[in-house]
Amino acid sequence: MDVSDLVARVLRGERRAVARAISLVEDASPVLRDVMAALAPHTGRARVVGLTGAPGVGKSTCTAALVAALRERGVRVGVLAVDPSSPFTGGALLGDRVRMQQHASDTGVFIRSMASRGHLGGLSWATPHALRVLDAAGFGTILVETVGVGQAEVDIAAHADSTLVLVAPGMGDSVQAAKAGVLEIADVFVVNKADREGAQTAVRELRQTSAQTPRGPNEWRPPVVSTVAVRGEGIGELVERLDRHERHLRASGEWRRRRHARAREEVEAIVLAALRERFGAMPGHADLDRLAAEVAAGRLDPYAAAGTLLAALGSA
Amino acid sequence: MDVSDLVARVLRGERRAVARAISLVEDASPVLRDVMAALAPHTGRARVVGLTGAPGVGKSTCTAALVAALRERGVRVGVLAVDPSSPFTGGALLGDRVRMQQHASDTGVFIRSMASRGHLGGLSWATPHALRVLDAAGFGTILVETVGVGQAEVDIAAHADSTLVLVAPGMGDSVQAAKAGVLEIADVFVVNKADREGAQTAVRELRQTSAQTPRGPNEWRPPVVSTVAVRGEGIGELVERLDRHERHLRASGEWRRRRHARAREEVEAIVLAALRERFGAMPGHADLDRLAAEVAAGRLDPYAAAGTLLAALGSA
Repeated sequence: MDVSDLVARVLRGERRAVARAISLVEDASPVLRDVMAALAPHTGRARVVGLTGAPGVGKSTCTAALVAALRERGVRVGVLAVDPSSPFTGGALLGDRVRMQQHASDTGVFIRSMASRGHLGGLSWATPHALRVLDAAGFGTILVETVGVGQAEVDIAAHADSTLVLVAPGMGDSVQAAKAGVLEIADVFVVNKADREGAQTAVRELRQTSAQTPRGPNEWRPPVVSTVAVRGEGIGELVERLDRHERHLRASGEWRRRRHARAREEVEAIVLAALRERFGAMPGHADLDRLAAEVAAGRLDPYAAAGTLLAALGSA
Repeated sequence: MDVSDLVARVLRGERRAVARAISLVEDASPVLRDVMAALAPHTGRARVVGLTGAPGVGKSTCTAALVAALRERGVRVGVLAVDPSSPFTGGALLGDRVRMQQHASDTGVFIRSMASRGHLGGLSWATPHALRVLDAAGFGTILVETVGVGQAEVDIAAHADSTLVLVAPGMGDSVQAAKAGVLEIADVFVVNKADREGAQTAVRELRQTSAQTPRGPNEWRPPVVSTVAVRGEGIGELVERLDRHERHLRASGEWRRRRHARAREEVEAIVLAALRERFGAMPGHADLDRLAAEVAAGRLDPYAAAGTLLAALGSA
């Protein structure tokens, strides 16, 4: 493969080249490093918006509505649907791709599902790398949609400038909402399916939550926006709230701080992946299976086993 | 603290000592290593059952019903509610604890919520360590309940002998179910709230999914159990299916294989945590902030930054 040709085409925003580059990310290609190096000087302009919430709240529909609204304003939009639960399946989120077909012929839109496979932080650099590709390709806003509720959501918040937390009426009581634990990562709350019974209650509860969270005088307090994404209702207000949040981030210096923190995490993830690789290649690693058998049998404790392996690494 | 006294009390199954030991796990206490070493010879007997599913399907209710059913058979039961979305909140899942108060005075039951905090696999050894404590304390069955859908669920499956995947009627269409991506980790499917409309359809769809998954002739094919956990309906059948799965695991050798794989992961997690710690303490780490600023500004690519840090580590 001609890396410089691929990079040139990514920088021109060619969708096929962008898709190819993201495949290199997913495959942890050996040329990935060169591609990332060449793209680096062209990054830092995109705004990253994370969308999260439990299955069934309408994340995909809301993403599609946001794409349409941003396209009307002439913004080129990238969509990354990250499925952290797919170490097994590989190609995930087909449902979302189907729903997004309305944008299939628009070259100002790029949509990609990505499985963030792996255990113990396996491909923890995959999402930031894919964002980097889309950023360099000139997509002004990148929407990152994740599946489910859990650590993945918190991770997405770490990658995003603004994080939307979606809820829908009748999706479980307030105990469940608190369990979701994602309230603290919200920059904007979205009550989707707001034409359903219970929407007013959900809006009121979230406003109370937002109002009661202790914050400094100049800190951002997450607004609550009602939407019926399937009909595009409330999406204009949502876009406006996102813009307001961006202005707040820039004025407060938080915009720069978040980007710095993201770069830090991306570099750390690469370092840790390299250390893991060294661990895998080190002489003592062959002993892992034997030691694990001892641990499983209760004849050895896991720290003693780890100590043996680390000693081998230290002398490698 | 007197480690040997604590260990002796854990081995006698004293709930306060068990709680204390799990707090040491959560706090990554310096004496954790000694506690784990002393407990290791007394582990390997407990059966670990994971419960997973989207918020609102009734995981906590089902857990409580399973506790009651297992207690009737005289089994001592440990419950670990793992909340992977709580790097911020610390004490999570209070709702579950409230729901489990019916077992509060039963010394044969131990219930604990645990936040598996941290990024990049931060406390990836926390759940296996807590399981180790409960195992050594003589809890015959340990139920591990997780919040949400995502990587955390896949991780829980890696820790469990049997994994229950719960669904409830009307919690989103089949596209959403496929998105959940947890179908492949299920050993037993549970359609909870089976008195609701749509339960039959959910059961039928899951049976089809289970039947259509390609498997070898002697491989386990996940059964589908209908429950109304809030009234205890179907819980007897569920316990019976779990027993059948355990017999299958033992007969096929999979029981031993799973435990070996778990020990392997636990040891690896400790090694990687130690490598991370070395990285944090290494000379070049102070440069991370400076390098991250360069990366954020697009003046440096993340691989070059990582290379600089790794070079410093190599020469340390």
